[in-house]
Amino acid sequence: MTGLPVRPEFEGRSPYGAPQVPAAHRLNTNENPYPLPDELLADLGAALGAAALELNRYPDRDALDLRADLATYLSRSGTAVTPDQVWAANGSNEILQQLSQVFGGAGRMALGFTPSYSMHPLITASTGGTFVDGHRRADFTIDPDAAVAQVRELRPDVVFVTSPNNPTGTAVALDTITALHDATEGVLVVDEAYTEFARPGTPSALTLLEGRPRLVVSRTMSKAFGMAGLRLGYLAADPAVVDALQLVRLPYHLSSLTQAAARTALAHTDALLATVDAVKHERDRIVAALPGLGLTSVPSDANFVLFGGFADAPAVWQGLLDRGVLVRDVGLPGWLRVTAGTPAETDAFLTALGEVVAAPGLGG
Amino acid sequence: MTGLPVRPEFEGRSPYGAPQVPAAHRLNTNENPYPLPDELLADLGAALGAAALELNRYPDRDALDLRADLATYLSRSGTAVTPDQVWAANGSNEILQQLSQVFGGAGRMALGFTPSYSMHPLITASTGGTFVDGHRRADFTIDPDAAVAQVRELRPDVVFVTSPNNPTGTAVALDTITALHDATEGVLVVDEAYTEFARPGTPSALTLLEGRPRLVVSRTMSKAFGMAGLRLGYLAADPAVVDALQLVRLPYHLSSLTQAAARTALAHTDALLATVDAVKHERDRIVAALPGLGLTSVPSDANFVLFGGFADAPAVWQGLLDRGVLVRDVGLPGWLRVTAGTPAETDAFLTALGEVVAAPGLGG
Repeated sequence: MTGLPVRPEFEGRSPYGAPQVPAAHRLNTNENPYPLPDELLADLGAALGAAALELNRYPDRDALDLRADLATYLSRSGTAVTPDQVWAANGSNEILQQLSQVFGGAGRMALGFTPSYSMHPLITASTGGTFVDGHRRADFTIDPDAAVAQVRELRPDVVFVTSPNNPTGTAVALDTITALHDATEGVLVVDEAYTEFARPGTPSALTLLEGRPRLVVSRTMSKAFGMAGLRLGYLAADPAVVDALQLVRLPYHLSSLTQAAARTALAHTDALLATVDAVKHERDRIVAALPGLGLTSVPSDANFVLFGGFADAPAVWQGLLDRGVLVRDVGLPGWLRVTAGTPAETDAFLTALGEVVAAPGLGG
Repeated sequence: MTGLPVRPEFEGRSPYGAPQVPAAHRLNTNENPYPLPDELLADLGAALGAAALELNRYPDRDALDLRADLATYLSRSGTAVTPDQVWAANGSNEILQQLSQVFGGAGRMALGFTPSYSMHPLITASTGGTFVDGHRRADFTIDPDAAVAQVRELRPDVVFVTSPNNPTGTAVALDTITALHDATEGVLVVDEAYTEFARPGTPSALTLLEGRPRLVVSRTMSKAFGMAGLRLGYLAADPAVVDALQLVRLPYHLSSLTQAAARTALAHTDALLATVDAVKHERDRIVAALPGLGLTSVPSDANFVLFGGFADAPAVWQGLLDRGVLVRDVGLPGWLRVTAGTPAETDAFLTALGEVVAAPGLGG
């Protein structure tokens, strides 16, 4: 770092981020492949144009209208959520950062269960806290008894549970979440970035908020809503959690354009979420096709599949890329992660994968 | 905070933010009063529409095109700035937060000279660091010898200098900045949010970047560019500083809409900066009128004036608000801050102020 007085714990670290590699089929960052519907694009144009007329003014610092719309969306699930239970930020990463600033930070500890969303340890570190890995079982599920024992022993200030988990895909049972909540005196953050893709009958941790003021459910519009470029993350929690975040949120953190675009998208929720079923269908097609290639996968409630059984996963990653298909090597020996997208993307992926596993030395 | 495990240093703190009070003339947050020009609004519509077509994809994580455009803008000043010297974020607040995360944080100290931008101590605290106030002279200037002595004694990790200073308005002499840089082993952040409004002959700290890898100049599009609603802050520094910030920046922190809107605005730089001269003219009108009311002001290189000589500044603030003019009580006994805006706003402000100071007990 050329002699700059960087904090010592950051020396030699690498920035987070998927390699940005050109490829015909980009199935590496769990984006939604469907562009926004035309009627939403038209309304977006009008809403952004109206916001631009007042762009010389600061945005609504408290994003009150947006939070009301997000509360309405969350309440569709059957669990009533009020606007004062909702907070929004530039991506769920900023939500997680604000939570870590208030409830974590220097001298405090966060517990997570890896492999999971790799920003949890990175945000813990960049806000001054210590991340401890609680590990998972061989099938990538959390062992509730072991997790509760760790919480009781380590007494973390923040506990991260990703459900559905990324990069493995499986939702976490609610009784595991309640057991962790009961065991911790800290804040339990359930990262539900992919929850709209869960298999039928998979409840959200929203249903657990009532009476649990230290439970936080974080969400994003990047995946099911297909708006990764918008950077809109949000949370639902007790209003006191939202109040606490005001102490560290940067004033006017959410631009007028972001607020206007997110509200417009939420007015088109039904049209946007129509892509979810299509993506789930492709996910299930991938899962169903893998055994025929001699491969296996982890049960997925998300818009991606962790697939494996490889002797040399990096070689398979390269073989797929050579055939125009970019998937993600998440660093789990024997496994790779593929985003479920359009039918054509599934076709391209399965064709390429079939060729790669037929090559000597790369199969399962 | 209702029993939540909030970090103890945040207990009892209040969130930052100007009171949001309805008023006919809002002269309290140093916004630019001029809406965006029509030709920019048209181009913005096209650019945002194009960005919306790919809103399902993540934005350019490194904002390469935007940084190139910002470098081009900065280079207009005569100091060549390259894209790898530039970094952008959601408002200069996020720039300052990222700097504090990398170079400040727990166990580290930031030195500033208050009264100055009140987010410097707040961001220092919310990133875990300790803020020390170096104070100013009675005329609100920094005493270079005293400041250098403090830097040598305290050995801060981050030094904040706001130039032009907010809320007092005066630019800092370059030899003060070089003296502070030479005295510190930490990072010197020169916050130039208002620099485009400086009086003629006031050089930017950009001219000092060459050969000073620990010097950072932060800027914003909120003021001179009249785009407070956009939330676009940026910095110029040695490329190694930009590299270091990659370790704490949240991935994809700048939305596609933000990047597209900022680039479009930069393509209209001349039209946008045309408002700067108009605002400076109103600022100078305010400054010139104050002595006739028996009042004084601090020399201003910004789009606001710190004016005073009041026995009871809060009463004057209320008297102005009663007449439809909202200014800012920045907590300096005897002083208030007014944003320079349109000619009509100047008229309304000066008329109201004349009435208020004529009232018994409120004058200078």
